[in-house]
Amino acid sequence: MINMMIIAGPASNGIASKMSSILRSPLVKVTWKLFPDGETYIRFEKDLEDTVVIVQSLYPPQDRHMLQLLFMIDAAFDLGAEKVIVVAPYLAYARQDKRFMQGEAVSIKTILKCIENLGASYLITVDIHKEESLKNWLKIGYVNLSAVEKLASYFKNKLINPLVLAPDMGAIKRAERAAQILNCDYDYLEKFRDRITGEISVKPKTLNVENREILIIDDIISTGGTIALAAKTLISLGARKVYAACTHPLLIDGSYDRILSSGIVDIVATDTIPSSISKVSVANLIAEYVRNLVK
Amino acid sequence: MINMMIIAGPASNGIASKMSSILRSPLVKVTWKLFPDGETYIRFEKDLEDTVVIVQSLYPPQDRHMLQLLFMIDAAFDLGAEKVIVVAPYLAYARQDKRFMQGEAVSIKTILKCIENLGASYLITVDIHKEESLKNWLKIGYVNLSAVEKLASYFKNKLINPLVLAPDMGAIKRAERAAQILNCDYDYLEKFRDRITGEISVKPKTLNVENREILIIDDIISTGGTIALAAKTLISLGARKVYAACTHPLLIDGSYDRILSSGIVDIVATDTIPSSISKVSVANLIAEYVRNLVK
Repeated sequence: MINMMIIAGPASNGIASKMSSILRSPLVKVTWKLFPDGETYIRFEKDLEDTVVIVQSLYPPQDRHMLQLLFMIDAAFDLGAEKVIVVAPYLAYARQDKRFMQGEAVSIKTILKCIENLGASYLITVDIHKEESLKNWLKIGYVNLSAVEKLASYFKNKLINPLVLAPDMGAIKRAERAAQILNCDYDYLEKFRDRITGEISVKPKTLNVENREILIIDDIISTGGTIALAAKTLISLGARKVYAACTHPLLIDGSYDRILSSGIVDIVATDTIPSSISKVSVANLIAEYVRNLVK
Repeated sequence: MINMMIIAGPASNGIASKMSSILRSPLVKVTWKLFPDGETYIRFEKDLEDTVVIVQSLYPPQDRHMLQLLFMIDAAFDLGAEKVIVVAPYLAYARQDKRFMQGEAVSIKTILKCIENLGASYLITVDIHKEESLKNWLKIGYVNLSAVEKLASYFKNKLINPLVLAPDMGAIKRAERAAQILNCDYDYLEKFRDRITGEISVKPKTLNVENREILIIDDIISTGGTIALAAKTLISLGARKVYAACTHPLLIDGSYDRILSSGIVDIVATDTIPSSISKVSVANLIAEYVRNLVK
């Protein structure tokens, strides 16, 4: 029995409660409301002690959820916590991870600094856009867990003659891991831009997709544009069926329909962001890591 | 000539440009946009040097404006600033300044810590809800400027037989300062709660309001409930006219109509928050303070 409390932040999306059951650690609920002017009010329903694990995913509205997280970290120490572990399954601003143009703010750096500066001693994320962000800007301990195995397992024994595709070369490691679970080969999609029309097209780098059942696996689906284009192309190239999986279903308005209408048969994501396709939970993955971390 | 740059944050509301003119210091504009998922993008249009003054008022949406401020402070140092002075004319979360109930987050403490932790060396606010918040939780320099004289001056020579009223005893100092400008007496409103109906009523503590032209002066108008109730009561007690002034016109939806329909003749506020009644600028007040601070 480890002395540890799990805090369900307003944006835990059920992950805290699941972790509490798995770890048999007490759950602390957080009362929150919005004042009429738009400010957030936060109250812990119990006093705290020893190690607390604050679960707060930073999905939209990102800024509100981020401030709630900061309020919770700071208040946790006031209310008796000795050590605060932050679990942010979806870390907002992770794509602004460098100065692409002179003068830009490197937003993810500021986000990480604020979490660290308030005294958190460990940060747990899932499939962050680039893991280097954590290494570059955190002095505290961290881990970036991968949900790829869990997502791939969802498709186990469901695909005939499967092939896993990464949406670009940068994501090839993720495809490789999924392919191991599905016991098949993998490839990535190459992007081409038409020099005259500017139109973008994709095709698999090396493998033939004819009669294959394809699983496209990505870290985040935002507008769904890449996935929809890929699906259409693969079907035109003779793929039998196209499936998709992603860790973070941001799914901006309109994107779910865009994806389904592109011919994708089924799409699945985790619960790092609430959505209609969040069928796989990361709670177990995180809970097992926390168990080893705290013991 | 002081080496100082004025940064117009996305929520400067014109104050930065006015300060830049008054101080003859270069203005740095900030390009910003919202990504489709709701994240903010921030870019300074110039490189920075020496002392920079970031102007960003934390009016609604407070959380977005707060994160923008944090991004700007952090990026300012990356881009060459040696010293960062933060001007937050309206400081959000200032009313959550203590633990009213066990378990609550003291939000304003976290807000101040985050600003300080990123390396800002001075904070300038205007009519913050309680000045003790700054003293209690900031280690860096700070000042809380008062817009009361500017607001009272707006009514100079406009009121016949004037009387200044504070909406409660806690605001009596503010009323006293306004009364000095208008060269009249002042009082505060006492609140009564009916023991049976729970209904709240107000009346001036000591002075007779008959045939007086009243100026009610407050730090913030949010729902407008207090001001509207006061106006109705004062008119029923024989006041000739009722005017109102406040520093921060939060004016939540519906409140401007509530105030006007209560019988208030004119209401004025500052530009710490954009509104239809923001007729008085705090730019001059802040610029003069900054001039002395930096020289």
